[in-house]
Amino acid sequence: MSGAVADLGLIGLAVMGQNLILNMADHGFTICAFNRTVSKVDRFLDNEAKGKSIVGAHSTEEFVSKLKTPRRIMLLVQAGKAVDDWIETLLPLLEKGDIIIDGGNSHYPDSNRRTKYLAGKGLRFVGSGVSGGEEGARYGPSIMPGGDEAAWPFIKDIFQGISAKSDDEPCCEWVGDEGAGHYVKMVHNGIEYGDMQLICEAYDIMKRGLGMPNKEIGDVFAKWNKGVLDSFLIEITRDIMYFNDDDGTPLVEKILDQAGQKGTGKWTAVNALDLGMPVTLIAEAVMARCLSALKEERTKASTKLEFVGRSTKFEGNKEQFLDDLEQGLYASKIISYAQGFMLMQDAAKEYGWKLNKPSIALMWRGGCIIRSVFLKDITAAYRKNPDLENLLFDDFFNKAIHTAQPGWRDVIAKSALLGIPTPAFSTALSWFDGYRTKDLPANLLQAQRDYFGAHTFLVKPECANEKYPAGQYVHVNWTGRGGNVSASTYQA
Amino acid sequence: MSGAVADLGLIGLAVMGQNLILNMADHGFTICAFNRTVSKVDRFLDNEAKGKSIVGAHSTEEFVSKLKTPRRIMLLVQAGKAVDDWIETLLPLLEKGDIIIDGGNSHYPDSNRRTKYLAGKGLRFVGSGVSGGEEGARYGPSIMPGGDEAAWPFIKDIFQGISAKSDDEPCCEWVGDEGAGHYVKMVHNGIEYGDMQLICEAYDIMKRGLGMPNKEIGDVFAKWNKGVLDSFLIEITRDIMYFNDDDGTPLVEKILDQAGQKGTGKWTAVNALDLGMPVTLIAEAVMARCLSALKEERTKASTKLEFVGRSTKFEGNKEQFLDDLEQGLYASKIISYAQGFMLMQDAAKEYGWKLNKPSIALMWRGGCIIRSVFLKDITAAYRKNPDLENLLFDDFFNKAIHTAQPGWRDVIAKSALLGIPTPAFSTALSWFDGYRTKDLPANLLQAQRDYFGAHTFLVKPECANEKYPAGQYVHVNWTGRGGNVSASTYQA
Repeated sequence: MSGAVADLGLIGLAVMGQNLILNMADHGFTICAFNRTVSKVDRFLDNEAKGKSIVGAHSTEEFVSKLKTPRRIMLLVQAGKAVDDWIETLLPLLEKGDIIIDGGNSHYPDSNRRTKYLAGKGLRFVGSGVSGGEEGARYGPSIMPGGDEAAWPFIKDIFQGISAKSDDEPCCEWVGDEGAGHYVKMVHNGIEYGDMQLICEAYDIMKRGLGMPNKEIGDVFAKWNKGVLDSFLIEITRDIMYFNDDDGTPLVEKILDQAGQKGTGKWTAVNALDLGMPVTLIAEAVMARCLSALKEERTKASTKLEFVGRSTKFEGNKEQFLDDLEQGLYASKIISYAQGFMLMQDAAKEYGWKLNKPSIALMWRGGCIIRSVFLKDITAAYRKNPDLENLLFDDFFNKAIHTAQPGWRDVIAKSALLGIPTPAFSTALSWFDGYRTKDLPANLLQAQRDYFGAHTFLVKPECANEKYPAGQYVHVNWTGRGGNVSASTYQA
Repeated sequence: MSGAVADLGLIGLAVMGQNLILNMADHGFTICAFNRTVSKVDRFLDNEAKGKSIVGAHSTEEFVSKLKTPRRIMLLVQAGKAVDDWIETLLPLLEKGDIIIDGGNSHYPDSNRRTKYLAGKGLRFVGSGVSGGEEGARYGPSIMPGGDEAAWPFIKDIFQGISAKSDDEPCCEWVGDEGAGHYVKMVHNGIEYGDMQLICEAYDIMKRGLGMPNKEIGDVFAKWNKGVLDSFLIEITRDIMYFNDDDGTPLVEKILDQAGQKGTGKWTAVNALDLGMPVTLIAEAVMARCLSALKEERTKASTKLEFVGRSTKFEGNKEQFLDDLEQGLYASKIISYAQGFMLMQDAAKEYGWKLNKPSIALMWRGGCIIRSVFLKDITAAYRKNPDLENLLFDDFFNKAIHTAQPGWRDVIAKSALLGIPTPAFSTALSWFDGYRTKDLPANLLQAQRDYFGAHTFLVKPECANEKYPAGQYVHVNWTGRGGNVSASTYQA
């Protein structure tokens, strides 16, 4: 077989790469498969790819020669150096107008850089988030492409063809310039961290707080999956609760409680800190993973630190409490998404990107890990008002958060009293109670900073007078000692 | 006046620089003052510096010529470019063995770099944290020097002379290599963010939760300042609560509740995320400042988001609750310091620094913003056992956290029920309840990741069997569908 037969070439034959190729072939595209360890190509062609419109290559030259022009090459390799290495390897073999797509979990500043670098060489770069894991890649992922928009018409049919569909709309749309696709994927993953942590906390509350067996917990998740929480992650949690090992006991209870976190969740939290946005739920979810990683230290601590409290076991109506828990999880999730959209909104302003918020919610509605009925409501909210300042200001979510509040508060209060950790539930509520507060106690903080460091402060506009004019930084001599020099170069 | 008369030259005459010079002069050292805007030098010499062993200079050449060798030059200028600019300006005028000290709030990687850069030119660089604000600088700051240890004998007398003393011990000791001094100062500032946020939350709970007037809140802080919370920040908070404006109403209530956060607190949170350490309290404190900054949006939100809950006002014994609040603040503070020391311990391992933990606690005992009786107990804990794995394992703090628990839990529960935000109190408790838990719900998280992404998992050693051997990553086909390829390049 020779000649330029393939609509797209894909490099990197781990599970995501293989499954994307099979998915593309199922949709009528001819794909050329390639991998650094070439033996993997033959193994793939002889097995999963057999009988499909999939060809392979045994060298980079052969790979490139098999692609129709403009060549569309998709990389599914480890984020970082491997992407740059492949770009350098491919560059001498490509022509102006060819397209390189990075479908890995690259950090968005790298995609900013690569878009510019390849544009300078007459090539088109696309940094595309792909979510949905193994199954999604195979049968319909969520795809979030950004970069050089001139590439979009040449890849749109393939990408929207293989992507998940939600109410017949493809869960793939052009996201924005440069690294915007990978940025949105990063926030998606951060939100995924948050969703997973919230579910873990609900599971822990039922398991240790209420002493429920896994089967019964599975039943609760099954029930929740028919209501406002209907989502992929709730569904698989139900399955996991029901999944027994050969000895008839739940497999999940045998799994080591130590999670990794060096990836996109951390990037989201760091980016939020850099932008000064209070994305607390994702940050707590990342740090909960960090704490889980300290298994040895926790095991030691568990022998030295005991629970002490005025209540020692759950009291009250269990059915009511489980309903409260559902509402608490729902409310916390609303907060997490509200924070995530605030972050993307701020990033778009900061980086000069145009982000299409209804499209983002739509892309997340199907295919990806966080897919849910909930995202349909978010899509509706942003379609109704693309300039919506905050998700909580939308009528639907405004009503939802008000309905959920009493139960949410009770769950957090009871968990605190019973010693079950709820970092994500708690931070969501504290954030909500802070966000809806006109006058936070940060006035005291500003007074403290002026007291010890002469950092100066502003007065509230409604309190302005001759001594404290509106908009003017003032320093007060709180002690009667010290000077009147304010701190101009030294910031705490 | 001419000739090399000065023991040290200081550049940067904002409040910290001026006060450090005055402090050094009070301790018998002759100091040469300099500033980029030279008029500030004369103004200083004619006023605050008059009659003291302080000389000035009108050019960099004159400044350098007035210093005894090896020359000791301290920079108190804006962190960042200004420090590098001054180093480049000074370099051609200095000789081998001369010492440049950066006393600003520089980021520790910059101090790593500068130590190496100047060592390559035969000069000695010291990056020194200085804390204590205006008052501290004038009458005794906490000083945390690190960098080129060969410089230490030449600056030790001046630094330990002017530093605060705690039980006759100077709150200044050599911290460690390269940027270690600025690193420890960074963590100090992060902890300061945490302490301040905790106090703000306590104030808010008393003000809005209990409806107490400022005078009464001041009385509570006054009482706390005689107990376990005895500290500089509690003391100034008491003063602030009592401080009235000319119209007889508390000034603090007029101050705008909008705090900045672009500095060292953020660096600490980012560093914690980079190292994978769950330093949740500082992260929440930074994000609470971010939320405070969104004043306009909060004001709007306050009209759209109402409190809904099953309790609407505080019920119970107020005196008991105030005692609980004291215990809750104390416990949260213990957690924050435990997290901070965990971070420094991990950083020392990661960066190959030797950090002296008892000395760090000692340096923070006096002079600096977080000075407190509490740090005396931390010093004692680390002196008793310099290899103490965690502050909570020390007998004193172990007992303290057990005593504090019931009240701490009640305060958080009641605040959640009443709608008062407690991000720092809550994260501290959740962290404590997580840290003391051998089996966290992260087992579910690992199952989820394996379910949707074939990410594999480990089993708990005590659950290992032939199918799931200890230490071996396994992938389970949870659905009966999908393949057996695990995700080697694609990480969520």
